[in-house]
Amino acid sequence: METKSPIRCIVKLGGAAITCKNEFEKINEANLVTVSSQLREAMMFGSSSGSVLEMDWSKRPGVSETPKKVDDFKEQQQGLDYNSFVVIHGAGSFGHFQASKSGVHKGGLNQPLVKAGFVATRISVTSLNLEIVRALAREGIPSVAMSPFSCGWSTRDRNIASADVSTVVEALDSGFVPGCTILSGDVIISHLAAHLKPQFVVFLTDVFGVYDRPPTEPNAVLLREIAVREDGKWSVVNPTFQDSDTKVETSVASHDTTGGMETKISEAATIAKLGIDVYIVKAATEHSLTALSGKLRDKIPEDWLGTVIRYVP
Amino acid sequence: METKSPIRCIVKLGGAAITCKNEFEKINEANLVTVSSQLREAMMFGSSSGSVLEMDWSKRPGVSETPKKVDDFKEQQQGLDYNSFVVIHGAGSFGHFQASKSGVHKGGLNQPLVKAGFVATRISVTSLNLEIVRALAREGIPSVAMSPFSCGWSTRDRNIASADVSTVVEALDSGFVPGCTILSGDVIISHLAAHLKPQFVVFLTDVFGVYDRPPTEPNAVLLREIAVREDGKWSVVNPTFQDSDTKVETSVASHDTTGGMETKISEAATIAKLGIDVYIVKAATEHSLTALSGKLRDKIPEDWLGTVIRYVP
Repeated sequence: METKSPIRCIVKLGGAAITCKNEFEKINEANLVTVSSQLREAMMFGSSSGSVLEMDWSKRPGVSETPKKVDDFKEQQQGLDYNSFVVIHGAGSFGHFQASKSGVHKGGLNQPLVKAGFVATRISVTSLNLEIVRALAREGIPSVAMSPFSCGWSTRDRNIASADVSTVVEALDSGFVPGCTILSGDVIISHLAAHLKPQFVVFLTDVFGVYDRPPTEPNAVLLREIAVREDGKWSVVNPTFQDSDTKVETSVASHDTTGGMETKISEAATIAKLGIDVYIVKAATEHSLTALSGKLRDKIPEDWLGTVIRYVP
Repeated sequence: METKSPIRCIVKLGGAAITCKNEFEKINEANLVTVSSQLREAMMFGSSSGSVLEMDWSKRPGVSETPKKVDDFKEQQQGLDYNSFVVIHGAGSFGHFQASKSGVHKGGLNQPLVKAGFVATRISVTSLNLEIVRALAREGIPSVAMSPFSCGWSTRDRNIASADVSTVVEALDSGFVPGCTILSGDVIISHLAAHLKPQFVVFLTDVFGVYDRPPTEPNAVLLREIAVREDGKWSVVNPTFQDSDTKVETSVASHDTTGGMETKISEAATIAKLGIDVYIVKAATEHSLTALSGKLRDKIPEDWLGTVIRYVP
């Protein structure tokens, strides 16, 4: 195993995709399981669902079992070769209550409420992070929770770096990612993308991609392809609107407060400008699997639903 | 809050004291609750059990409640002053199975079984660590899980650093603590003690202290006071044996394989040699509370049960 292995993909599991956003600290188990197995498929070469080598050997609440998969490893001693992925996840319905209740993102750790909020937020996101790491491990993905700033480990051991938002809080606290917001992993991603130079980046979300207005609105249009230019400005190239730039950018900005799509696109644009394709796609669908497999780099199928943000010199 | 605050105490929660050693991944809840509240008492100035400011605002399996303690903070906005403690804990019945099954401590992460064991061990000890952090937080202790090597944070924010053994695995993996054994936090402690210069160090265990032979044996004698000399050699000064050094050291060595008491004493001696008192005491007893409160530094009460390891120039 070489010390530096190229990173195939950085994937962001959106908080809305892996948790039940409107239920306090509730994981979307069905989505998490599907997402994890799609990640395995995308990472492992020729590994069928039949031969999953479980890496979570711990007790699970409600489940009474002693680990059975351990002995599988005895048989195959040569290292499984797989694409290196880095997984970042949002917090969804975890951490949000604790952070907003205490205003921890505003700083001031000397105030009891803020300090308590820092601790409470970390506990909440850490418990989410542990569940995600375990879900990945159960799919045979060597997932290891870590700070995005100790990536040396993840690249050397080709493990998954699953960075929960608490590391962002720590980072804020020690001045690593100035000005990033507490419950958004997106800023970490461009940071990691710049350092790790992945072949592509995938945002798994709870809608099909980026729309020209809130997707809940009638005749909201899915933006299939966004081109990022030399100067960092972006414009929609598919579908084609007349007078696109203004029309879209304003309408996007108009619902920025709700979904922060403007922010997401700008963030994605920064990554795309590095020559790294960014795919924003609905989690746990055939479309997310297509995106994670990297097939979109050659050609975007007609029937693929999602948003591609790509650098066009 | 000043950037550098002196560390009052480094305390090691022995795996045997906080878990049910012979039951797979089972926490000793009763002990953990008592230990946490004793830590609060020892840390906080004038904080009665009545006014505990809970810092765990997350859901707990089985417990259906929305956090109620949050608003308590509104009332008292000035920072609670308290002694800085650093908490290290062992793994007990967590991590052990995963580590031994995979031989992860022997290294060789390129082998599937070892890599899986690394992931599985981390999951196991991380789940224990999370429960300990939460138990401390419920006692109003601003507990934050972290690597013992990012102590800058813990000293600056005067938070608790609760280092689970997975950080030792990481450390091993990146060559920070060469030769330490995977499931022993003891090596971390002398490392931290040397860096943080605490006023004293406490080892909370499941027996009353260090004995001259396995405590289960008839007429095993509790070693109440061990003196460490300039040259690092140690000898028992209370109780007094004739020809003590040889007698005890050999008899201690004789059951080294079982409890590793020889190792524990040598480890403690290294810390004591820095002029830092080390107390080895049974967890969740009046004696552990006395030790944590720091009273032993002035005078060791006649009726106190435990082992003091102290530098005697």
